[in-house]
Amino acid sequence: MEREPCGRAGCDCPKVRPESGFLPHLFKMTLTFEDFPPGRLGTFGPRQVTREEILAFAAEFDPQPMHLDEEAAKRSMLNGLAGSGWHLCAIMMRMMFDGFIGRTTSLGSPGVNELRWLAPLRPGDELMLDVDVTEARVSKSRPKTGIVTFKGVVRNATGQVLCEMISPIIVSRRASVVTKEAG
Amino acid sequence: MEREPCGRAGCDCPKVRPESGFLPHLFKMTLTFEDFPPGRLGTFGPRQVTREEILAFAAEFDPQPMHLDEEAAKRSMLNGLAGSGWHLCAIMMRMMFDGFIGRTTSLGSPGVNELRWLAPLRPGDELMLDVDVTEARVSKSRPKTGIVTFKGVVRNATGQVLCEMISPIIVSRRASVVTKEAG
Repeated sequence: MEREPCGRAGCDCPKVRPESGFLPHLFKMTLTFEDFPPGRLGTFGPRQVTREEILAFAAEFDPQPMHLDEEAAKRSMLNGLAGSGWHLCAIMMRMMFDGFIGRTTSLGSPGVNELRWLAPLRPGDELMLDVDVTEARVSKSRPKTGIVTFKGVVRNATGQVLCEMISPIIVSRRASVVTKEAG
Repeated sequence: MEREPCGRAGCDCPKVRPESGFLPHLFKMTLTFEDFPPGRLGTFGPRQVTREEILAFAAEFDPQPMHLDEEAAKRSMLNGLAGSGWHLCAIMMRMMFDGFIGRTTSLGSPGVNELRWLAPLRPGDELMLDVDVTEARVSKSRPKTGIVTFKGVVRNATGQVLCEMISPIIVSRRASVVTKEAG
């Protein structure tokens, strides 16, 4: 019986999740630019979202009635209490961190190219995150780094897409590759 | 001496701030689509951000070393502890809520067209938010509503731009205008 932890930061699950497209031999490695060729990176989750979390985030950052007040939310376009879109983004960030960014030589992100909120985040939702690399290129201004553009798609347990995001991240290249080029 | 509160939700300041471009007579009204013609909407803030807030948000949503660990952050591209970009977005959302969205017939947002993180959010920063309406049009599919596209720019006390965001929001039209059209 496989008892190895899967290697994702903060995860104590006993094995590699079958839904992940991530290669098992990469699970304990630090990931660099070279580990992100264009294509499917993996599927991460599930992450359950509680009513308490939704209310706490809304109270602090986005206290609109549809995010805080059950009755007002029922009368709203969202037809019931729904988490803030910014809460969903923050949860997606954490899922990406736990999934791969926590083990990646990430230097930060210059921003988000596109972000779509497509369906409401509901209390009790179990979220899954699909991540693809849409582009990966070496930086011209900082040749020891590359820019990896990720597309993240968050779904609930019924498969409905709640959110899509396309965002570049700056990632260090493997030292051996950079040294070889310089030599 | 003017002792009226400025009317922004959560604000107990004694008067309309001189930096705001918002018309004072609008301060207590519910705002509809008609109140958002293209052009400058206003300047909102200041909002101070503490080290404790930065660490708490990072621990929950974005525990990368540059957001959590002073020493690691000094060695990073950000040259010191910096808040998560998603924290800055959440704070911008709250500043927009306090500034005008809390009094607006907002139905939600389909997403973000563009988001740029341009400089680090530092502990102790005092943020100001400039908001412009870049486009305002009546919805074809839901003619009782309009789509107002906002550009938000967050600056610190030195005037450095930390973040720019362009995002559409769906806003109800004033009932009298819609009734007149239908009549």
